[in-house]
Formats: sequence, C-alpha cells, structure tokens
Amino acid sequence: MALKLVVIGGVAAGMSAASKARRMDPDIEIVVYEKSGYVSYGACGLPYYVQGLIREPTDLVVRTPAQFARRGIQVFVHHEVTAIDATNRRVTVKNLESGQVFEAAFDRLMLSTGGYALRPPIPGLESPADNLFSVRTVEDGAAIRRFIETERPQRAVIVGAGYIGVEMAEALVVGHGIEVTLVTLFPPLVPTFDADMSEHVSAELARHGVRLHVEGVQAFERQGPRVTAVLTEGEGFPADMVLLAMGVRPNTALAQAAGIALGPTGAVAVDDHQRTNVEGVYAGGDVAEALDLVTGEPAYVPLGTTANKQGRVAGENIAGGDAAFAGIVGTAVVKLFDLDAARTGLTEAQARQRGYDVRTTTVKASSNAHYMPGGGPLHVKLVYEASGRLLGAQMVGHAAAKRIDVAAAALHARWGVADLQKLDLSYAPPYAPVWDALLVAANVAAK
Amino acid sequence: MALKLVVIGGVAAGMSAASKARRMDPDIEIVVYEKSGYVSYGACGLPYYVQGLIREPTDLVVRTPAQFARRGIQVFVHHEVTAIDATNRRVTVKNLESGQVFEAAFDRLMLSTGGYALRPPIPGLESPADNLFSVRTVEDGAAIRRFIETERPQRAVIVGAGYIGVEMAEALVVGHGIEVTLVTLFPPLVPTFDADMSEHVSAELARHGVRLHVEGVQAFERQGPRVTAVLTEGEGFPADMVLLAMGVRPNTALAQAAGIALGPTGAVAVDDHQRTNVEGVYAGGDVAEALDLVTGEPAYVPLGTTANKQGRVAGENIAGGDAAFAGIVGTAVVKLFDLDAARTGLTEAQARQRGYDVRTTTVKASSNAHYMPGGGPLHVKLVYEASGRLLGAQMVGHAAAKRIDVAAAALHARWGVADLQKLDLSYAPPYAPVWDALLVAANVAAK
Repeated sequence: MALKLVVIGGVAAGMSAASKARRMDPDIEIVVYEKSGYVSYGACGLPYYVQGLIREPTDLVVRTPAQFARRGIQVFVHHEVTAIDATNRRVTVKNLESGQVFEAAFDRLMLSTGGYALRPPIPGLESPADNLFSVRTVEDGAAIRRFIETERPQRAVIVGAGYIGVEMAEALVVGHGIEVTLVTLFPPLVPTFDADMSEHVSAELARHGVRLHVEGVQAFERQGPRVTAVLTEGEGFPADMVLLAMGVRPNTALAQAAGIALGPTGAVAVDDHQRTNVEGVYAGGDVAEALDLVTGEPAYVPLGTTANKQGRVAGENIAGGDAAFAGIVGTAVVKLFDLDAARTGLTEAQARQRGYDVRTTTVKASSNAHYMPGGGPLHVKLVYEASGRLLGAQMVGHAAAKRIDVAAAALHARWGVADLQKLDLSYAPPYAPVWDALLVAANVAAK
Repeated sequence: MALKLVVIGGVAAGMSAASKARRMDPDIEIVVYEKSGYVSYGACGLPYYVQGLIREPTDLVVRTPAQFARRGIQVFVHHEVTAIDATNRRVTVKNLESGQVFEAAFDRLMLSTGGYALRPPIPGLESPADNLFSVRTVEDGAAIRRFIETERPQRAVIVGAGYIGVEMAEALVVGHGIEVTLVTLFPPLVPTFDADMSEHVSAELARHGVRLHVEGVQAFERQGPRVTAVLTEGEGFPADMVLLAMGVRPNTALAQAAGIALGPTGAVAVDDHQRTNVEGVYAGGDVAEALDLVTGEPAYVPLGTTANKQGRVAGENIAGGDAAFAGIVGTAVVKLFDLDAARTGLTEAQARQRGYDVRTTTVKASSNAHYMPGGGPLHVKLVYEASGRLLGAQMVGHAAAKRIDVAAAALHARWGVADLQKLDLSYAPPYAPVWDALLVAANVAAK
C-alpha cells in the first residue's frame, strides 16, 4: 500500500515538502490541509500587493489547488487540522466552510502550520476591528487593500517596525499617500539590526514623511468596530486604520497538544532531517527552529527562504531520501524607499549577549564609482571576534541587497575579516567602486 | 637617509603603491612619473564620460598631482621613463613637454606601466587617424567626446567586443544616437564568457540596434587623416569614427630592456609580495601577472580591482611591511544596456582546454520574485569538475552584478556545487526570488 503523507499548512514549507516528495516518489498519497483559502503563495509579496505594484492578490500564488491536483497532490483549503493523534497516526480536520469534522490517517506528517502575527494582551485588542489588520495571509492583504480603496483612510498607525512594519509604511506612503505613524517598542529593524545601523533606517523613514515614535503601546482606543487611536504613555495617535506588525510567533498549539517537542526558542525542535521527536512527524518553516551556523545553536528566524529549503529537505526524507538542511546564518534584506537594509549573522548586541569577545568596524562607503550618477552611500558594519572571525554583517544604504550574500558566504565558510579582504569581487562603475564597500570595511577591520 | 621610491605610471597600481607606502612611512621620498597628463583616475569610467553621464573627464580623477604633493608624493605628469638601469638603480626620464631628458636614482622601483590597446599590423593602421581611437586614457576619452561633439558622426565601427567594446557601443547608442557596428573576431565577450552565454549579449546588442559582425578585420580604408571604412573578408562597413577595442596587452618593453623577467602570459612575473626578479623592483596592475587561485597558475587579467590591490600590497612591502596578494579568481562584470554580464573563474572552454573533467549546468532563473515588476530573466551557468568542485560561473541577465560575488567567494573557498546549494542568501521580492538564481543552478548541478 502506498505511503500516506498529510501536510498541515500549505504555504512555503508545506508545499515544498509535498512537491519534493511527489517528485521523489510518484506513488505516495499526498493530502494537504490549509486553513486559509490559498496555498503556495508568496506572503512576502503582500506589502507590494497592498502598495499596488501587483494587480491581484492571486498573482502572489505560485500554484493553485487545481494545479497541485494535476501533480497528484490533493489540497483542501479552508480546512483546519484541530488535533494530531501521534499514537494512532490520525489527524482531526475541520472543514471551515461546512463545519464538518472528520479524521484522516497518515503514515508521515508534515507540520508546517507557520507563524502568527503577535497580538499582545493590550486593551482594545480583545475583539477584532474593521480597520485593524495583520499582514500574514492573502486574505489579510486583500482586506487591507479593499479597506484602503473603499474607505480612503488618511492616517494609518503601524505598530512595530520590523521588516513587515517598514515595508508596509512604504506601501501606504508610496502607493496611497497615506500619512503613516510608526509606533514601535524598538527602533526600526532592531533587534535584527544594531541601534547604530537603525539610525539610517529612521532617517530614511523621516525623509519620506513617516513619523516614528519609539514607545510601547498602552491601549488601542475603540469606537465600536473601529480602532480610532493608538495610545502610548505620553501620546495618542489618531488612526483611520491600524496595522499590527509586532513580530511573528510559531503556531505550535497543535504540536504541543500532540506531544511534539518544542526547542529552546519556543518553536518546534527539528534535527537536520527536519524530523521532530515523534517518529514520522516532520516540521519546517515558520513553526520550526533552524540551526544557526554561527552559534551552533537552534534559532527562530522565520523567513521564506528557510521555509522553502526545510520543506524541500523534509519532502525528500519523507519519500525515503536522506537529505540534510545545512542550517542558517540569518541572512535577510528589506527594501525601504530608496535604500536597502541587509543583514546576516549576529548583530553586535546579539554577539555581546552571547558572550563573544566582540570587535566591530563600521564604514560609510559608496555603492558605486564616485563619478557615476545613481549611486549613494552604503553603510557597512562588520561584527567579529578578537581573533578576526566574522560573526555578522549589516549593510544599510544603496544596493545592499545582494552584497550581503558575500558576508553570508563568509559566515558559512567561517572566515575571518582577513579572508574577506582577499576576495576578488566584481567591479564596474555603475555597480561598485574599485574597492567594494565590503572590502573597504574588511580592510579597516583587518588592520 | 630616507629611502627613495620611484613609481613608473601613476594610475591604479602606481598611485595605490605610492599612497600605501606614504601611509606606512612618512619619511620615504616618493616620486611618480606618468606619461599621460593625469594620474589616479578611474579609466573604467571612460565609456560613461563619453556617453555623457559624467560631465568632465577630470571628474574621473580621484586625486590631482597637487593633492598628492600635499601628502608628500611628488607627481610628474607628461614624464616618460625611457630606461631602467637596474644595476645602478637609476631611471632615465623624458619630460614630454620640454623634451628634456634626465636621470633619477631610486632605492625601490614600482613598475606600473599598465597596458596598451592592442593594435595589430592591419593595413590602414600604420599611421594615426583623426577619427580612430582607443579607450585607455583620460586624453582618449576627451578626444572621443570632442570628436563626437564637433563632428557629429552618424556611423561608428567598434572593432572588438570585449568589455570596452560593448560598453562603448552602449555609450555611443544611448548617449549620442550613433549607429554602431561591432566587428569582432569572437562573439561578444568571448573568450571571457562561453559562446552559449554570449548569445544573450548578442541578443541585447541587437535589441538596441547594434549591428554585430563576427569576422576578422582585413583592412582599414583610409582617406588621408581619416578612416572611412572597416573592411572584412566579405564586407565593408563605412565609418565616421572607429574605435579599437581589441584587447589589452602589458606595457613590458621597459621592463624587458631592464632584464625584468616576464612570466608565461607575457606580462611581468611577480611573487605574492609583488616583487619582480630584480631586487627592489616591484610591479603590479595591468603590466603584471596575478596568481589565478582556481588553476594555481599565473594569469593575465588586467582589471582595476587587481591593480589597486596589487599596488597596495607593493606599497606596504616597499615601506618595509610584509603583505601578500592573495590572488584572483577573475571576477568581472559589465553593464550592457538593460542587462549585466558577470563572470568569475574559468569558462567551460577555458576549463576544457586545461584538461579538467568538466560538467556544466545552465539555468534560466529570475532576478526577483515572479510577481514583482521590474525584474527579468537571469541566465546562470556553473562550470565544475566531476567531483562537484566549482571552477567558474557566468551570469547574464538582470541584476547579475553583485550576485557573481557569491560564486567568486565560493571559488576562494574551493567549494563544490553542493556547498553553494546550502547558502543562506538574502531574499526580498524586489531583489530575489525565494530561491536565488545561484541556488536554482546549484540545486540542478548538485543532483
């Protein structure tokens, strides 16, 4: 009899696992249950859909359930798995449209329930509001854009200034001319970036008229189904719409109830084969941890790249293969108006907290040759040990996006700053000065 | 008594050596002789000056002789060193403006005479012509732009389709609406790129109206001081102006006459400290070889990045330091209209010629997320050994420039394609798909 794989959650990790398992083995029976109405979509594109750069929310979808069906992968959207019986190898599934509840057997389970937008117990958040949004699903994106198009809000408050918070600020300002106030407990992109690098992000936000308030939210003022203002200790910020972008937490409730172990970060613990502690149950994506190659410890860094890779590894192993996920170094980039903020490895703060003997070098270099129009400043911060071993890098400025990848490769290679200095990097006046920004920083650091 | 350093040639390697030596030791006496009228300029910016993106040719200059003088570096422009007496540690110098010839003593010599534009013995090239140009010096750039502005040429023939040839094609078409014909012995960018990757370059040239003829030039038709047509075996291409971009050769005449040894490539042989075979004589930049880290053999790859690094190493050692140049992997990028062509390491043809057991993988990926506007196709070719060890990479398409640097880092690390596959690379919809083009290629190659 054919092996039966049940996948819980059909976005990045889940559909990567399903697709890879199918490519490995044409006989496996594969069933995917997805709570929302869409699978296999690029959630990272939601800010650009809201901005209006992308026409339809469905443009974010890579493959539809019908397309998966043709590959022999059965997808059930609006189906929520409500329980896992690990002993008897069964899941309980609720059809969210009909209300019908049923059970389904599995031989292998892929747990890819993703993450959820953090929503702390702040007064005013007890019940949903018409103009209060998170940015996780296609439905979230569609709701935000529909609200903007029908209600024409003039003032928005975004709570949280991580990747999603700053991307949504750009989307609302550039796409819709909405006045945006960012209220955030930490400076923009902190703690993913250090406070000194965050200052360049704050300056860019200010240049584009985004008002920034680094304070905790005390309450959301309500008038019936609407939030009317966001209140901090000292101030109140009136809002026609509010976005919650306070961070992502792993959807572990289902796993915990089934006895699937969590790791030190609070996400599901997995080995390098994406196996959980329960035989036959794999996990990956925003619900799971990943090995941080810099520290050698598990980390929770929910990103689409990792989800896709972990899903692919899980799918291969589910189908009888022997694949390992190498781990992460925490590389990420965000576009913010006219600059990029990119990072990899540990920040200075993270490195100090972990007890490393930390050195840092920060330079202001240039994205391209001094005489070429179209370039701009590029700030580079290298974080390294006294021995010279690189621990992390941050770049904020022009054309940082793919430059950070060299620093990421250096972390994979466990290089020191003197190794970075030796690199034969590409040069052409429109793209780099003869000394690339990373080499400028490495030259200073290696002194 | 203070050490006396004489630098022959004051562009990238020469001025880097002078500057580094000065920073290391405030007492060294440093004298630079430069044949042309400018030192310390970005020769790679010449096409952009001709195009009109840069206002003045002097905008390409990083520092003037007067600025160097303030740092205690004496610079003599329009001074040609005509002989080196290695035994008696003297150079013979000719002041090209006054005609005066004099001798100058040195303790250390930096040979940075650069390269020259290849000019084969083709009929019609025996004497200079008013409308026949190379693209090496600030004076070359100024002469080309002056000619364009005063003579308003309608048809240009560019002979050679290496980096300079294709950059100049773009400069003439975009900047001045000139009809450009490229006559070239090899397809565009070959042999630096493989012929299959070159096809994308040819297509881009065609899309922008550049006519391409892959043939050898038989003669340049002259009418007095003008070239009127470029003749191949079968055809004649009328020209109001002609650019020679047939490649660069090292200016070794002075070195050879002085008994300074050349290496197997015909450029000056240097060790990792940039020392020549003659005690106290250093070399670097376009006159010198560099160690190719992929093959372990000396190579001649005249590029500004290498020149600057070699100059810096030479300067440190001249001043009593102990610096080593790590070597090159041959990384380069060129912008060509709306695409980039980037490369590192060995091409397939180069690898086969050297007897490697070669495998290749070529993919057509995307520069960014499928749903984002503004991206485009990105062709990636990986060249590797049967063992998986990466030998080289080529990328032609959108946003290749800084992406090639990861492949360059992989060559430095001597990684295999399976190592590339593991990399945690940056992702954001405007800059990359969730699987970066390099990972797509590595996934296919590692199968």
